[in-house]
Amino acid sequence: MSRPIITLTTDYGTADHFVGAMKGVIAGINPDAEILDISHNVLPYDILDGALAIAQAAPYFPARTVHVVIVDPGVGSERRPILVCGDQNYFVAPDNGVLSLIYEQQNTLSVRHITAEHYFRAPVSNTFHGRDIFAPAAAWLSKNWQPQSFGDEIEDFVRLSVPKPKTDGKLVKGIVLRVDNFGNLITNLKPEDAPQLLVPDAQFKIRVANKEITRVVQNFAQGQSGEIFALVGSSGYLEIAMNRSSAARGLNAGRGAEVVLEIR
Amino acid sequence: MSRPIITLTTDYGTADHFVGAMKGVIAGINPDAEILDISHNVLPYDILDGALAIAQAAPYFPARTVHVVIVDPGVGSERRPILVCGDQNYFVAPDNGVLSLIYEQQNTLSVRHITAEHYFRAPVSNTFHGRDIFAPAAAWLSKNWQPQSFGDEIEDFVRLSVPKPKTDGKLVKGIVLRVDNFGNLITNLKPEDAPQLLVPDAQFKIRVANKEITRVVQNFAQGQSGEIFALVGSSGYLEIAMNRSSAARGLNAGRGAEVVLEIR
Amino acid sequence: MSRPIITLTTDYGTADHFVGAMKGVIAGINPDAEILDISHNVLPYDILDGALAIAQAAPYFPARTVHVVIVDPGVGSERRPILVCGDQNYFVAPDNGVLSLIYEQQNTLSVRHITAEHYFRAPVSNTFHGRDIFAPAAAWLSKNWQPQSFGDEIEDFVRLSVPKPKTDGKLVKGIVLRVDNFGNLITNLKPEDAPQLLVPDAQFKIRVANKEITRVVQNFAQGQSGEIFALVGSSGYLEIAMNRSSAARGLNAGRGAEVVLEIR
Repeated sequence: MSRPIITLTTDYGTADHFVGAMKGVIAGINPDAEILDISHNVLPYDILDGALAIAQAAPYFPARTVHVVIVDPGVGSERRPILVCGDQNYFVAPDNGVLSLIYEQQNTLSVRHITAEHYFRAPVSNTFHGRDIFAPAAAWLSKNWQPQSFGDEIEDFVRLSVPKPKTDGKLVKGIVLRVDNFGNLITNLKPEDAPQLLVPDAQFKIRVANKEITRVVQNFAQGQSGEIFALVGSSGYLEIAMNRSSAARGLNAGRGAEVVLEIR
Repeated sequence: MSRPIITLTTDYGTADHFVGAMKGVIAGINPDAEILDISHNVLPYDILDGALAIAQAAPYFPARTVHVVIVDPGVGSERRPILVCGDQNYFVAPDNGVLSLIYEQQNTLSVRHITAEHYFRAPVSNTFHGRDIFAPAAAWLSKNWQPQSFGDEIEDFVRLSVPKPKTDGKLVKGIVLRVDNFGNLITNLKPEDAPQLLVPDAQFKIRVANKEITRVVQNFAQGQSGEIFALVGSSGYLEIAMNRSSAARGLNAGRGAEVVLEIR
Repeated sequence: MSRPIITLTTDYGTADHFVGAMKGVIAGINPDAEILDISHNVLPYDILDGALAIAQAAPYFPARTVHVVIVDPGVGSERRPILVCGDQNYFVAPDNGVLSLIYEQQNTLSVRHITAEHYFRAPVSNTFHGRDIFAPAAAWLSKNWQPQSFGDEIEDFVRLSVPKPKTDGKLVKGIVLRVDNFGNLITNLKPEDAPQLLVPDAQFKIRVANKEITRVVQNFAQGQSGEIFALVGSSGYLEIAMNRSSAARGLNAGRGAEVVLEIR
C-alpha cells in the first residue's frame, strides 16, 4: 500500500509558521501521510485565485488524494468547513466557493458539513482553522477513509460563478482571470467560445489594454522578440503572452482586464 | 515504525541551491527521513524572526521530530553549533539565540555543543554550515537517536530576550514583532498583559502609527470594510488587523512599530 | 530499499498550479517516489540561472537521484527533451543547455533524446512539458531504471559556455553570475583564477560598480558594519558580500556586472 497523499493549497505564504503548523498537525495524526505542497501563494483572501489553482492541479493527482484548500477570509465566522467527495478524490476546505471549479469537474459529488468536533484540535482558535480543523480533518480522513463520519451531507454549499465570456454581436468579451509566473495573461476564453479563431488564416483582433493582437501561435518560441500574441494554454484557456518576456508588463494589464475578441 | 521527521526553517530563500543541497545531504545520510519545509523565508539575518517562526510551528509536531533552524549571520565564526533536546523534540541550530523562544516552551532542556566532527561533511566550508554541519547532524541524529554522541552539554548557551511589554501608569507599551503574510501586525502583547481589554464593553484605546483602535473582534470577518481593529491571534498575541486587507499598509506600520494600549 | 528520490528545479514559481500538477503526475505513476523541491524560483526563462542552481545542489544528493530541471522557453518547439545519465545520477530536462554545468561535473556521461511517447501524458500540450513529458519520464525512470528505453543516445546535445574569466595583463576580468538571497554577488572567479589573492598580505584591488574592494575575509562575521568585502563561497566562487547586509544593494550592482581583479 502506498502512502496516502495530502496536498496543501493556501494563501498563507511561506514566510510565517502557518504551513509548518499544519504539516506538524498532519504528521502527528497520520505519520504515514505524504504531504505535498501545491501552492501557498494564492493571492491573499482571493477565493477565485484559489479556485483556479486547485482546479488546474487536482486532476493530475491519483485517486484517493486528499486536497486541503484554504483561502478563508471568513475564518471563525458562520461559514462552514466542508469535506467534498468527488469522482476519485477528496477536498477539505471552507464553504466559501473556493471549490467552485472543482465541482464543475466532477460527475459525482457529495459535500458534507464537517461537524465532528472530535476530529478537531482543541481548543479551536478563531483565526487559524487550517491548523485546528482542516489539517486534522484531512489527516483523519487519510486514516479512516470514512467521509460520512465527518458530518451530514448538505446541498446548499456555496458555488461562485466564475466570470464567463459574453457574446455581443461579432464580439466575444472576456477578462483576464490571472497572471502567471511568466507574466502570461490567462483569460476566461476557451477555444469553444470562438472556434473560428483557430482555423487557418483566421481574421481576428484581440483587444487588451488598448493594444491589438492579431496572431495566435502554438508555443511561446514562435513569438517574435517584443511581439504580444495569443495561444491556447495547457489548461485550455486562451492566454496573452510574449516570448521570454512578461505580457503583463508589456501591456501593463493584469487580473480583471477586459479582453475583447473580434472575428472578421 | 513511521519515518523520522526532519523540518527545515531557514532564511535561505528558495531561489538558490541552499535548501536543495541540505535536502540532498539529509537524503544521503538517512534515506528514511521525511523532510518537511517549515519556512525558508525568515527575514535574512534576523534571529528574532526565525525564533518566532519555529516557536509557533514546533509545538504542533509529533514527538521525536528533529527541527533544523538556521538563521546564521555568524556562520564560520566562533559561535557554536548546538543540539537541543526539549521535552519531546530535538533542535539543531547555531547558538545565537534563534531557539530562545523554544527554550521558554520546554520543561526539560539540555543543550549540547556539537563537536563530533565525524558527523560533519568534510571539508566544512566557512559559510554554509547548513549543508556541512546542521543537515548532517540532524540526519545522523534521526538514525542513531544518541544526542550525547554529538558533544558535551553546555549551560552558557545564548538566550535572547524577546522584547516584553512595559507598563507605564495606565499605559501598556509593546511593539510589533512581525508582519504576517496578510499584513496583520503581530504584537508582543498577550491577553494576560491587559486582561481588561477582553471584558465586555471594555473602554480602551490602542495607538499604532498615530491611529487609534478602539475595537477588539473575534475574527477577521467581523471587521467593517476599511476598519482597523485588534484581535487575539491563533498564537496568543494581540494582532492589529483588517478584514481582507493589510493593516501594515493601512497603517503604514511594520516590524518594531510602537503599540500603546490605554485602558480607561 | 529506500524510496527513489525525484527532485524538482524549475522557473515555474510557486503561485501557479504548475508545480502541483507535476507532483500529481509523478505520484500517479510512481507512488513510492519521494519528491523533493530544490527551487521553483529560478529566474524566468533564464537558462544559466537554472544551470547554476542544479549544479550547486545536485552533487549533494545520493546515487540514483533523478533530477528534473525545467527552464524551458523553447517548450513545444523543436528543442528535444533529454535524459542524462551521469556518474551516479539522472537528469531529465530540455536540451537547451540548462545542464551545461552538470556535464562538466561528470566523468561518464550519456545523453538520450527522449522519444518513447508511451511514457508521456496524452495528449501532450504545446506549453507544459513539465507536466506532460518531464514529470512522467522521471517517474517512469524511477520505477524501471532503464534509461535506454527512453530513446537513443545523442552526441550533439547543447552545451552553453558559462562566462569564463579573462586575463588581461595584470587584470583578471570576470562577471557577477548571480545574486543570492542575502544579496551576495556570486562571481565567476575561482581561487585558481587568482591564487595570489589568497596568500597572506596579498596586495590587490577588486573593482565592482566603481567601488574598490581590498579585503578578503573567511566568513561574513569578519566584515565590519557597512564594509564590502570578498570571500570564497561555499561553492568555490569568489563572492562580494557584506556582513548582515546586501552587497547588491550596497553596490547597486547585480547579475552581469563586471568584476575586475588587479593583483599588485
